[in-house]
Amino acid sequence: MKLINYTVTGVTRSGAIVGEKIIDLNYAFQAFLKAKGKYRYKEIAHAYVPDNTDELYQGGKESIQLAQTGIDFILENPDSFDKKAIYNRNEVKIEAPVRNPGKIICVGHNYREHILEMGRELPSYPVIFAKFANTILGPEDDIPFYPISKQLDYEAEFTFVIGKKARNVSEEEALNYVAGYTITNDVTYRDIQRRTIQWLQGKTVDGTAPMGPYLVTSDELSDPSGLDIVLKVNDEVRQQTNTSNQVFDTKKLVSFLSSLMTLEPGDVVLTGTPGGVGVAMDPPQFLKDGDVVTIEIDKIGVLENKVKKVEVLTKVT
Amino acid sequence: MKLINYTVTGVTRSGAIVGEKIIDLNYAFQAFLKAKGKYRYKEIAHAYVPDNTDELYQGGKESIQLAQTGIDFILENPDSFDKKAIYNRNEVKIEAPVRNPGKIICVGHNYREHILEMGRELPSYPVIFAKFANTILGPEDDIPFYPISKQLDYEAEFTFVIGKKARNVSEEEALNYVAGYTITNDVTYRDIQRRTIQWLQGKTVDGTAPMGPYLVTSDELSDPSGLDIVLKVNDEVRQQTNTSNQVFDTKKLVSFLSSLMTLEPGDVVLTGTPGGVGVAMDPPQFLKDGDVVTIEIDKIGVLENKVKKVEVLTKVT
Repeated sequence: MKLINYTVTGVTRSGAIVGEKIIDLNYAFQAFLKAKGKYRYKEIAHAYVPDNTDELYQGGKESIQLAQTGIDFILENPDSFDKKAIYNRNEVKIEAPVRNPGKIICVGHNYREHILEMGRELPSYPVIFAKFANTILGPEDDIPFYPISKQLDYEAEFTFVIGKKARNVSEEEALNYVAGYTITNDVTYRDIQRRTIQWLQGKTVDGTAPMGPYLVTSDELSDPSGLDIVLKVNDEVRQQTNTSNQVFDTKKLVSFLSSLMTLEPGDVVLTGTPGGVGVAMDPPQFLKDGDVVTIEIDKIGVLENKVKKVEVLTKVT
Repeated sequence: MKLINYTVTGVTRSGAIVGEKIIDLNYAFQAFLKAKGKYRYKEIAHAYVPDNTDELYQGGKESIQLAQTGIDFILENPDSFDKKAIYNRNEVKIEAPVRNPGKIICVGHNYREHILEMGRELPSYPVIFAKFANTILGPEDDIPFYPISKQLDYEAEFTFVIGKKARNVSEEEALNYVAGYTITNDVTYRDIQRRTIQWLQGKTVDGTAPMGPYLVTSDELSDPSGLDIVLKVNDEVRQQTNTSNQVFDTKKLVSFLSSLMTLEPGDVVLTGTPGGVGVAMDPPQFLKDGDVVTIEIDKIGVLENKVKKVEVLTKVT
C-alpha cells in the first residue's frame, strides 16, 4: 500500500494512493463493515483503521491489512457509502505519511564509500541525533528558507517508520517491527548545525523534514537493501548511492535503537545521507529561493520540494 | 499551583498538590460547573481543564486559573460531587508533571563558573541536544539501570515547561510563554553518550528523565533567577550552583529556541547542569544499584529517586 495522509476542505485524514485515485482508509473500511451489517461500523472502523496515521500505525500489520480490505471493497462498490471515500489525485493535497511522531531519529556517517573516501574508519556504532515533529512537511509543501542563515543544505535519506512497539529486538526479527519505507530530505541549516558541537539546532528548524511521496508498507517492500538513491537540485545530480552501502542497515538500526529505547509505532528513522551535500562542494553550493530538490529511491518513488524564501520572521507560523 | 499527574487504580489524571491533599483538577472543575447549574459540566470541564496535563498545557494561563477555581471550590465543598476529587497524598502515586511532550530540549555547557574553571570561553550560542518522551519518570519511580553500560551518571537540571505556542518570541516577553518550573535529573549513560560525536544515544535510554516533584506554575514563581540548586548522592553533595550562574537563562532560552522552531504547550526544556558530575570526579564515581539521587531547587522542591539495577534485558518494558 502507498500510505499517506491527505487534506481536503481543511481536514486531514489517512489515505492510500491507488493509481490515480486517493482512497480514504477509514471511510472505505466503514463502508465494508456497514455492508457486512455491522451496526457499530463507525466505532469498529475507528478502532481498527483510524482516520489519522499516528493512530493507524498502532494497529500494526492487522490495521494495514484491514485498510487494504476496505480499499478493495470500496473500489468494487464505489457508490456503497454515504461519505466520499474516493478522490481523484488532483482533488486533494497529499501530506507526509506521519504527522506527529514521538521520535524522529537521524543517523549520521552511515554510507561506507563516503566514510572511506574521507579517510575515516568505519564506525563501531551508529551516530544518532534528533529532529522534532515541527520539521515535518509533505511532498506538496515548499521548504521554507527562514532568514536566519545563508546555508540551507539538503540530505537525501532512506527512511523507515516503526509499526510495532520494539524493545531489545534482534536483527533477525527487526523487519517485523517496520511499518514501511519512505523518503525524507534531512534539510539542514549548515552554519547553525556547526556553531556548537551538537547538531540539533541546525537540524530541527521548522519545516526541515519534507517526507513522502508516501509510505510503501513493508508487505509490499520486504527487503530494504539494494535500493538506488539519487538526489538532484534543479536536475543536476548531487547525491547518488545505494542502501547496500549503508554501514548500519535497517535491521541493524532497529536492533541497535531498540537496545537503548522503546520504539513506538509511528517513530521515524532517517538512515543517513551519502556524500555530495552542498557544503562539501568546491565551492559550497547552498540552496536558494526557487531551487527544486528531487530525491528518487528505487521501489519507493520521487520526493520533490521547492525552496521558498521566507522574507519576514513573524510570531505566527 | 503544584501541578502533577497522579495515578490511582491504574488511571492517571492531572492533579495538584495542596498541603497533604491531592486534588483532581478535572473533577474539581466539574464540581464547580455543576454547582453553577451547567448541564454540560463534563464537556465544558474537559474543554477547559482536561484530565491529562498534555492537553491542560494547551489551555495556557486560562486553564491554570480555572483549575485553581475548581480547587478552591472543592476544598470548600468537599462533598458536593459524586466522583472522588480529593485524595490523601499516600493514597495515590505522583507522576511527572508532563507525560508525553513533543520535545524535550536539553542545554549543555550552561553554567558560567563551570565553563570558566574548565578554562573555556563563554559560548555565543547554547549547545542544545534532545531526549525523547520514553525517558520520563515520575518522582516516585526508581531509575532503571540497564545492563548496557557501567557508567550511569546524574545531572541536576532546572527545567521549564512551555505553556503557550511560541515562535520568534523576544526575551522581554519570553516568560509569558512558560507554564511553570520543575526539576529533572538528566540521567546519562556516560560511555554511551561519548562513543560517538553526538550525545543522543547516551541521553535517551528509557527512564533517564526523572522529573518532579511537581510543576510550580509561573503565576507562583514569576522570576526563575537566583535559585539555588543542590544535588546529592546518598546525602553527599556533588553538584551545587544557582540559576543566576546560567549563561543562557530561561528568557534567553525561550527566545533563542523559538527563533529556530515552534515551541508547543507541554514542550520541556532542561536548562543544563553545573560541574560535579560523577564522570568528572577523581576517580570517577558512577551510580550503582540502590544509590539515592536527591536534587533540591529553591522555591521548587526536592526530587529524589533511587537507582534500581535491571538484571535481564527483556522485550517487554
